[in-house]
Amino acid sequence: MLIPIRPQPYAPVTELHLGRHLLQTDLLSSSCKRFGSRAVLIADRALKELYAEPLAQKLKADLLCLEGGELAKTADTKEQIEEFLFERRCGRDTVLLALGGGSLTDVAGFAASTYLRGIPLILIPTTLLAMVDASIGGKTAINTRFGKNQLGTIYHPKLIVSDLETLQSLPEKEWLNGRVEILKMGLIAKPELLQNLSFEEIVAGAIQGKIDVIEQDPQETGPRRMLNFGHTIGHAIEASAPIAHGAAVAIGCAVESYLSVQLGHLSKPEFEKIKSLLPFERLPAAYNRRLFLERLKYDKKNANQDVRCVLLDQIGRASPCEGSYCRAIPEEKLLDAIHWMEKTHG
Amino acid sequence: MLIPIRPQPYAPVTELHLGRHLLQTDLLSSSCKRFGSRAVLIADRALKELYAEPLAQKLKADLLCLEGGELAKTADTKEQIEEFLFERRCGRDTVLLALGGGSLTDVAGFAASTYLRGIPLILIPTTLLAMVDASIGGKTAINTRFGKNQLGTIYHPKLIVSDLETLQSLPEKEWLNGRVEILKMGLIAKPELLQNLSFEEIVAGAIQGKIDVIEQDPQETGPRRMLNFGHTIGHAIEASAPIAHGAAVAIGCAVESYLSVQLGHLSKPEFEKIKSLLPFERLPAAYNRRLFLERLKYDKKNANQDVRCVLLDQIGRASPCEGSYCRAIPEEKLLDAIHWMEKTHG
Repeated sequence: MLIPIRPQPYAPVTELHLGRHLLQTDLLSSSCKRFGSRAVLIADRALKELYAEPLAQKLKADLLCLEGGELAKTADTKEQIEEFLFERRCGRDTVLLALGGGSLTDVAGFAASTYLRGIPLILIPTTLLAMVDASIGGKTAINTRFGKNQLGTIYHPKLIVSDLETLQSLPEKEWLNGRVEILKMGLIAKPELLQNLSFEEIVAGAIQGKIDVIEQDPQETGPRRMLNFGHTIGHAIEASAPIAHGAAVAIGCAVESYLSVQLGHLSKPEFEKIKSLLPFERLPAAYNRRLFLERLKYDKKNANQDVRCVLLDQIGRASPCEGSYCRAIPEEKLLDAIHWMEKTHG
Repeated sequence: MLIPIRPQPYAPVTELHLGRHLLQTDLLSSSCKRFGSRAVLIADRALKELYAEPLAQKLKADLLCLEGGELAKTADTKEQIEEFLFERRCGRDTVLLALGGGSLTDVAGFAASTYLRGIPLILIPTTLLAMVDASIGGKTAINTRFGKNQLGTIYHPKLIVSDLETLQSLPEKEWLNGRVEILKMGLIAKPELLQNLSFEEIVAGAIQGKIDVIEQDPQETGPRRMLNFGHTIGHAIEASAPIAHGAAVAIGCAVESYLSVQLGHLSKPEFEKIKSLLPFERLPAAYNRRLFLERLKYDKKNANQDVRCVLLDQIGRASPCEGSYCRAIPEEKLLDAIHWMEKTHG
């Protein structure tokens, strides 16, 4: 006997607010009341005095300050958040707010998605990268010793509040991370982002670009994969030696553009143009080819353990590759591209 | 600036096959090919020789045998499954099959839902309880020291294969667990299950009853909560002292029926009828009121830390309670019901 089970489709809606001085308005207090009856704020320790404590006070929220950054994106941090919630006997009426960069919003979002099988989530990204990338699309994750973002969920926040004023306190090196993701968005789908626009226009355009892609493909079965452009190589660099995410992805975009030329997708003049648009970054001193290759094989897109990359057809257009938006790279092309990377960026 | 994000609705479909000798057919081999390119089988150690090894061989699947049962439904077991997958470099093309009782399918389902943000899942329940309850509806979970099912996801399997032949090897005490869930389904929504039907009809009817409820309400915001009838009290008994799930839920159904009378929902004659339908079970010797009350306060349904229960309006109909399908129990009514429980089932 065959019994089909068809739960009603799940239609998540996220409200994204982008602007200045949003943390000073009543937006967050009224939203917390809308989505629950109590609030817990998980915040980057570096933002404690500046934003976290005043906000927690305003929302009457319990506050947990955590180390931010990639190294904190672990099972241990997720557990720390869960213990904090359990010890306060938080029920499903608890709204979890996450204030910080993408690492913090990723791990806090993952915790929210599995705590009592999911509690309402509000993201308050405070880095350019988190505003244009990490906070959008519902991906949550932690890293494991097997690589980046290896465990996680797709879980949509109720609300994202991106207050551009919080970028005032952004450390210099953080800007690169956001800039490179914006360039990536320009290269795969939004060429206008590569033109001269105001800062506000660029941020709004990059956000809209990402929304357009994820709205088409929330479960990442097709077009959404194009967002991984530069990231197959970039993640493997990052996982094999310490380097800024933006620097690793900048090199990744260059290498995957090179592969796009070698596999007959992209013209050489466009490749030269891309190189001039990307910030020039060097591989970390601790780069090690063996470890890099090992990390590459673990990438989530690797069906059948092939290494798969997103390719470009031209500036502003990722290759659809029959709807899969990625392509298995033949071993000799891959080794040639790695050789090129080591020569050019080493 | 307000930018709404509306990902396409996610419309999961699960195929459920119910019958006999299904493990001997090509159903599972052809399904694995349909949903991925390799397979990993997570199975209860007790079923290793009887079902797991032959099936793994047939599917050319990597096999991981684990302890079954409630005590194995932990973060450690989830991690063990993840390590097994990572070490074999399983990508998103890996189908995870879970063979065993509800504890095993719950933890394996949770692992599948967060591994690389989700890989295809096939459930092969081998207990009556798992067939009529745990395998249906997409709930996955592990227990924590704060209570049962405190961490998990809602993640729909691609396929459920319930082979009634596997019940041949079901230990005697396991039957109670399934029987009580079937009675619960009868009490809340399917009174015909309380009549004389054949075993096959009862199993199919209980499954269909659960499907009807979860199809209406996949995210558990309303009607699905009725499935928790007997479980607010039952889970707290279970979490406070060792007892079979079915025995705890049988007592829970009795206590929550008693509360339904006390709160003016259910008639006394129907309450007497319910008591005669339920198997009579006793509280465990280690029962301790303080610990029981503490567990009760942690229940996931407790908005504002009130204790909430599903109530019955009559045999075969849970109280809608204005669409919330649960009701906060006034402290004195709760204490009276606990007193009744201790006197009657102690």
